[in-house]
Amino acid sequence: MLNSYTIGDYLLDRLAQTGIKHLFGVPGDYNLQFLDHVINHDHITWVGCANELNAAYAADGYARCKPAAALLTTFGVGELSAINGIAGSYAEYVPVIHITFAPNLISQHKRQLLHHTLGDGDFGHFLRMAMEVTVASATLTIENATSEIDRVVGDALRLHRPVYLFLPLDVAAAPTGNRPYPLPIPEPVCSDASLQAFVDAATEILSAANSVSLLADFLAERFGAAKSLQRWLDQTSFPHSTLLMGKSTLNEQHPCFTGTYAGNGSDEKIRSLIEDAEVIISVGVLFTDTTTAGFSHHIPTEKCIDIQPAVARVGDKTFSNIPMLTAIETLEKITSTLSSHWKHTTITPPALPSSYAKDELDQHGFWQQIQGFLRPGDLIVAEQGTACFGAAALTLLQGCRFITQSLWGTIGYTLPAAYGAQLAEPLRRVILLIGDGSLQLTAQEIGSMLRDNLNIVIFVLNNQGYTVERAIHNPQQRYHDIAPWNWTQLPIALGGDSNKIRTRKTSSPAQLAQALDQIGSEPCFSLIDVVLPKMDIPELLQAVSQSLEQNNSAH
Amino acid sequence: MLNSYTIGDYLLDRLAQTGIKHLFGVPGDYNLQFLDHVINHDHITWVGCANELNAAYAADGYARCKPAAALLTTFGVGELSAINGIAGSYAEYVPVIHITFAPNLISQHKRQLLHHTLGDGDFGHFLRMAMEVTVASATLTIENATSEIDRVVGDALRLHRPVYLFLPLDVAAAPTGNRPYPLPIPEPVCSDASLQAFVDAATEILSAANSVSLLADFLAERFGAAKSLQRWLDQTSFPHSTLLMGKSTLNEQHPCFTGTYAGNGSDEKIRSLIEDAEVIISVGVLFTDTTTAGFSHHIPTEKCIDIQPAVARVGDKTFSNIPMLTAIETLEKITSTLSSHWKHTTITPPALPSSYAKDELDQHGFWQQIQGFLRPGDLIVAEQGTACFGAAALTLLQGCRFITQSLWGTIGYTLPAAYGAQLAEPLRRVILLIGDGSLQLTAQEIGSMLRDNLNIVIFVLNNQGYTVERAIHNPQQRYHDIAPWNWTQLPIALGGDSNKIRTRKTSSPAQLAQALDQIGSEPCFSLIDVVLPKMDIPELLQAVSQSLEQNNSAH
Repeated sequence: MLNSYTIGDYLLDRLAQTGIKHLFGVPGDYNLQFLDHVINHDHITWVGCANELNAAYAADGYARCKPAAALLTTFGVGELSAINGIAGSYAEYVPVIHITFAPNLISQHKRQLLHHTLGDGDFGHFLRMAMEVTVASATLTIENATSEIDRVVGDALRLHRPVYLFLPLDVAAAPTGNRPYPLPIPEPVCSDASLQAFVDAATEILSAANSVSLLADFLAERFGAAKSLQRWLDQTSFPHSTLLMGKSTLNEQHPCFTGTYAGNGSDEKIRSLIEDAEVIISVGVLFTDTTTAGFSHHIPTEKCIDIQPAVARVGDKTFSNIPMLTAIETLEKITSTLSSHWKHTTITPPALPSSYAKDELDQHGFWQQIQGFLRPGDLIVAEQGTACFGAAALTLLQGCRFITQSLWGTIGYTLPAAYGAQLAEPLRRVILLIGDGSLQLTAQEIGSMLRDNLNIVIFVLNNQGYTVERAIHNPQQRYHDIAPWNWTQLPIALGGDSNKIRTRKTSSPAQLAQALDQIGSEPCFSLIDVVLPKMDIPELLQAVSQSLEQNNSAH
Repeated sequence: MLNSYTIGDYLLDRLAQTGIKHLFGVPGDYNLQFLDHVINHDHITWVGCANELNAAYAADGYARCKPAAALLTTFGVGELSAINGIAGSYAEYVPVIHITFAPNLISQHKRQLLHHTLGDGDFGHFLRMAMEVTVASATLTIENATSEIDRVVGDALRLHRPVYLFLPLDVAAAPTGNRPYPLPIPEPVCSDASLQAFVDAATEILSAANSVSLLADFLAERFGAAKSLQRWLDQTSFPHSTLLMGKSTLNEQHPCFTGTYAGNGSDEKIRSLIEDAEVIISVGVLFTDTTTAGFSHHIPTEKCIDIQPAVARVGDKTFSNIPMLTAIETLEKITSTLSSHWKHTTITPPALPSSYAKDELDQHGFWQQIQGFLRPGDLIVAEQGTACFGAAALTLLQGCRFITQSLWGTIGYTLPAAYGAQLAEPLRRVILLIGDGSLQLTAQEIGSMLRDNLNIVIFVLNNQGYTVERAIHNPQQRYHDIAPWNWTQLPIALGGDSNKIRTRKTSSPAQLAQALDQIGSEPCFSLIDVVLPKMDIPELLQAVSQSLEQNNSAH
């Protein structure tokens, strides 16, 4: 039955060839036959998740650590459950290949009233919805399947964004003589004339500058420029910084790394080092409301060199068709001849604020201890809310990765994302920082972590509700409260073996210290319920949320 | 601050006026100001759910028991998480009013890179997606808000399907001088000429018939025709039946009620009573693959009188503009003069099959005991899978309601739907029948049931995975398996007080009998983990799933 080579096999081989080793999803009756091929595939492992939204988040977390990820859902019910995850991947430039299995072509042609349809005979609704949140999509037929798979997968890799394949089950089962030869990803276009003009403009503004700073953000990491950028910075002495979404793009141990920049939400020293330079180079930066404390950044166009994936800008002049890597290499050359202009300074990132109380655990005390708990190479996943805005102030050690989702900001995202990231990076220690309100949205994926024996360390920042929203509006209202769960019981209920996992409730600094000690010495799945005051809010979140409330009220 | 009457207040008053008493949703920073108004409203209670998809399912369950339901989400992340639930409401004719709060008009006009956007300045993506799965939608402005609210809410009530309101937060906060006067829902159009032609055609075919049967389905219930239909049937002696989606539309204690009809998947006696009549009257019927065991029904057009919400058909003649209620009343008159034609028979619905084993609990033994456990007025919610296909064979007692979702068939739906239904029907006993695979998708809503002290009775049909899919394809494959949870621990982890709730694992008929006894005597939240053989499948599901596999393989 699995003897002949099918279009489904072609798709799996194509995925494997891009570096994908796992396929996330939920079985559904339209994709079961294909799943037989997945199970039999030598290089792809099936990862069944508890629901499709979680599977999409897990795929997103995976794709942030690998060239891409793949997600399998069934028609209608499965794909729509996942679509918020795909939208997040779109917003944040994460290449997830979403494959949806559809009823066979005859049923579609007959407009049959099948389950998982809207009962109107129209099989195109969900493709049209997917097109709003993907950069490429295809309805596969036996005739076009292999070339369309190549086009769409190629676009995911080239544009670093999600794509959608609508695959009728009989098309997947049809034999094909084609084989997935190496996929040529077109090099980004580079215009020589544009580049020369950029060199001239950049040289002019940099030669005249007495000080330079650099700001990097997530698009530098997404478009593969982080290493080149770091190599350049290792030879210079600009003060440099990342925005929250780009945290871990740069080495935070570098003597000129300032800490996280967030407009007026930044520590004053950081703000001044970045904004007050005579020239500011920004690489892969998107100024969004949450990463700039409500657009409070002051980066005037006229003193900025801005590098985007395919376009560069010097002051108000735009230079198209310059790939990000080329722009970085160009700037590296220019600055190497000018570096004597700028004085070398070593910067000490601002210290984490101290805890007010000694006996009660608060946000300050918590983050102090987490800073000490970090090890080189850790993969830190921090949920939108007190978690990521608190974690912004951490100084990461060598080789650490940091994952957050501040633009799309869908709560609950990080639990499945941490699961996906751990499967992509089995040798790293994954630390998940998540609030109790957020964790409730996607908690069932703890069951998958336990089933797969993953040693993820989860800190539940337990402030009894949505503190990030309390910070924005009317903190005492009961809509900020959530159902009170017994967090330390949850892993056992979701299939954990109490002899093999660690759960602990901590409400004092000493209890937390003891819990961290234990985790450090013997790795296993751990869930620490960190009881924190309801209204205790990290400084950066305070600044960000005030600006959001102000924006919401302005009209 | 809440002093002046706002557009948001108008919306709440309009909802209350339609009979809505609860607003389901999840708070998000764009809807917090509005939530202050919700909390202060005299007739609307805020119901915070653990995530948005669950909230959409809960609203759907609520709307099946009330004139409509309302769902509140935030822009982008919230609404897209919920959209699969809205699609289900669309497919199954359930009026859910989905309100999404959006950033203020100035931010939209400036195309700001706000969180919860795709970062491209386009605020219209999600409205376009919503339009695929709703019958009406509106982007509210200060100028059009109150009239557009009326139009869209009116369409939800008139067409019994979901609608979408896109509400910028500053529009909601703007004062209005309008008040929600009673909303005129236009009566369905009735054409006298068409009706007369229908009377003639129906009289002709009925007069010549020696036997008549009647088949009712969910659209009869949705369009408010169940009572009229029952009154008519109480005066006749047609054998009559419902399809699975319409179960509980008719009184199953009636002497001529045959049991559930499912094409060739029916008990042979039922099939013959319905299909072999000389005239078959179908009311609000949609023949879908899962309710007809893969379109195996034999209801030839030439001997059928088909009544749909606005159209009637006799043989191959279609009569437009006849409302369902009018058609039913017309047929009642015609048949009252003809009833002597047809012989009176009392029908005994087929008995539930007996269990093979006495000591091991199996599907047969389980359903036998559930039949005995039922009480008049129970509200039974049965998940797609072994649960609903097994429950199809139950004979419901007087006044019972049955909720299933067989057309859209999104697994995990019923847990939140049972929660919503219980809030809509506080006096009924709600019994949830759900498989372990399905329950994992939406399990967190148990926390909301417990927080709200609801005495829902949950039977977890625990066959260690997706048995409905094992029935369709390759039962031994590991993709049918799920993470093994400890079900009886779950309610405690989700906030249950072990002194106030009941959890029990049953793997023998005696254990189940004891558990049912206890539930009968002292009502409280109960979760019964019913351990069943992995491959034990109710007969109807066997027939349905074989037909689905056949359809999936046909090409």
